[in-house]
Amino acid sequence: MKANILTGKNQPLIFQETETPGCKAGEVLVHLHASAFNRRDYWIQQGQYAGLKYPVIPGSDGSGVIVKTGEGVNSALEGTSVIINPGFLWGESESAQSPTRFRILGMPDNGTFAEYVSVPVEYTFERPSHLTHLQAAALPLAGVTAYRTLFSRANLTSGEKVLITGIGGGVALFTLQFALAAGAEVWVTSGSEEKIEKAKKLGAKSGVSYRNPEWAKSLLTEAGNFDVIIDSAGGEGFPDLLNLAAFGGRIAIYGGTKGSFAALSPQKIFWKQLSILGSTMGSPEDFRNMTAFVSTHKIIPVIDTELPLSDANEGMNRLAQNTQFGKIILNHTGVL
Amino acid sequence: MKANILTGKNQPLIFQETETPGCKAGEVLVHLHASAFNRRDYWIQQGQYAGLKYPVIPGSDGSGVIVKTGEGVNSALEGTSVIINPGFLWGESESAQSPTRFRILGMPDNGTFAEYVSVPVEYTFERPSHLTHLQAAALPLAGVTAYRTLFSRANLTSGEKVLITGIGGGVALFTLQFALAAGAEVWVTSGSEEKIEKAKKLGAKSGVSYRNPEWAKSLLTEAGNFDVIIDSAGGEGFPDLLNLAAFGGRIAIYGGTKGSFAALSPQKIFWKQLSILGSTMGSPEDFRNMTAFVSTHKIIPVIDTELPLSDANEGMNRLAQNTQFGKIILNHTGVL
Repeated sequence: MKANILTGKNQPLIFQETETPGCKAGEVLVHLHASAFNRRDYWIQQGQYAGLKYPVIPGSDGSGVIVKTGEGVNSALEGTSVIINPGFLWGESESAQSPTRFRILGMPDNGTFAEYVSVPVEYTFERPSHLTHLQAAALPLAGVTAYRTLFSRANLTSGEKVLITGIGGGVALFTLQFALAAGAEVWVTSGSEEKIEKAKKLGAKSGVSYRNPEWAKSLLTEAGNFDVIIDSAGGEGFPDLLNLAAFGGRIAIYGGTKGSFAALSPQKIFWKQLSILGSTMGSPEDFRNMTAFVSTHKIIPVIDTELPLSDANEGMNRLAQNTQFGKIILNHTGVL
Repeated sequence: MKANILTGKNQPLIFQETETPGCKAGEVLVHLHASAFNRRDYWIQQGQYAGLKYPVIPGSDGSGVIVKTGEGVNSALEGTSVIINPGFLWGESESAQSPTRFRILGMPDNGTFAEYVSVPVEYTFERPSHLTHLQAAALPLAGVTAYRTLFSRANLTSGEKVLITGIGGGVALFTLQFALAAGAEVWVTSGSEEKIEKAKKLGAKSGVSYRNPEWAKSLLTEAGNFDVIIDSAGGEGFPDLLNLAAFGGRIAIYGGTKGSFAALSPQKIFWKQLSILGSTMGSPEDFRNMTAFVSTHKIIPVIDTELPLSDANEGMNRLAQNTQFGKIILNHTGVL
């Protein structure tokens, strides 16, 4: 098969012929029609994770068709369109992944930037029927991350007010779409007026540019306090979020691109009864609930760029520029 | 009646004759047999809160007997032994107090360092029958704070491992007793070896001195990670708590005597799926659940010092020294 292979830190992907994976007991072989990028793929290329090993086929997100079933798997599944839950060996607890066993498809296991991938059958889920393979490929990693952050962690309920900082990335956009579908009112921040306008077209009430040094004050004046705040930046701006949160507010974080939080006041946290909630990926139950939610609400992922499978390096470049609004997709077949 | 009156910031309490409070519609007049100090009383004397008004009778905790009932209150309640829930006008939400209406008995309303206090009947609860007035007076503010922090916020369950930092204060000790009664294994920290030994006598597994710069490492080696951590210090040491927490761990805070947290890593918080949970006082439901829990488990508050009502300034001195292990109690009648 053809695949994009990463041979070392800071190397470009090499698109070349490699062995089609086998299909062991309990596994299925998926012919991938589409895959999608996550920031994780960029960090892996930059060598920013522990335990990297090369060569590897990156890619955590994929949608395709089961073409072969391993021993012990019902062969009637052949021909089924599926997406893949990329969070392997989560473990028994809903509260966190196993610290030692949890792994994410695409490193160290070969991932989805290839014509085929073999995965244990329990990680395949029927593709939501309202989505094409290209749309469905956008969903898994970012969708489950957004779902867990917003619902399993921040416990969002209908009618609440939500702030999403740094709109534009895959998780932030799913968070926006899921929160709206759940009946929340949503505000966003961004460094780009264009992204704020696009978010408003998707249903956001309004947004402010975090390049304005008074952004938090002006947002508070305009919108009042927020029940739920979703952040993936951290850094110097994080203490502002304590002021923006309502009494009993939940600030859920799934990333920290701007680094350590500036000094936080314990008095604000305990007096306002705030919760700061870390979230990573999602459990198998989160994944199942996420796909059901997406199907019920007919949510269609926002796609920024579609590229051929052979042009994965261009996808990495887009991630490096960090200007995208929505997911960057690889079309493996040219067939939607 | 006789009462301890605070006439201004940084003034000593003056023990003198003052008018016995009336008993308005919906209220009961309680003849107080005992009251107890909280750190809040010390901050009020130091002028560290907004909205202070003088003269005032401080004191949030009390146990006594209803001697008069106001209009609309069942007069059969006269003669009932009660403790007082000092959290007034919490509001409708379990997630936080009303930001505008919530107030705590003892400022601005006259409190319990007096022979009598009048309070709305809904804030009186039957005194747990296994407790004397002196013991019961120790319970309200610290007990409800500990209960909410440990159960309503940190969601402690049987078999979990708990760390309580800075053992010795009223809330920390109730947290220790409640966690043990709930079937948890508890470790403590303190600056005093003597307090650690006392905590072990109460049932703590073990403890470490936070004066040892390697305390977090040595505790991790000895005990492993903690499911629940209860902190009221914050400050430079707080980031250590992220390392001590287990995956999915909850760090609940009800104070911040050491000030702002040093820089926290968002990566640790989201990867380990940690929750940092602020907690203040408790709702009426928390209070009810707390008294039921104390009755079921026959928990007896730890008392550090018993003083006569006329010697409240000595109680303030004890708070200032911060060397106590357990509650400082005023005995109003000499009758247990």
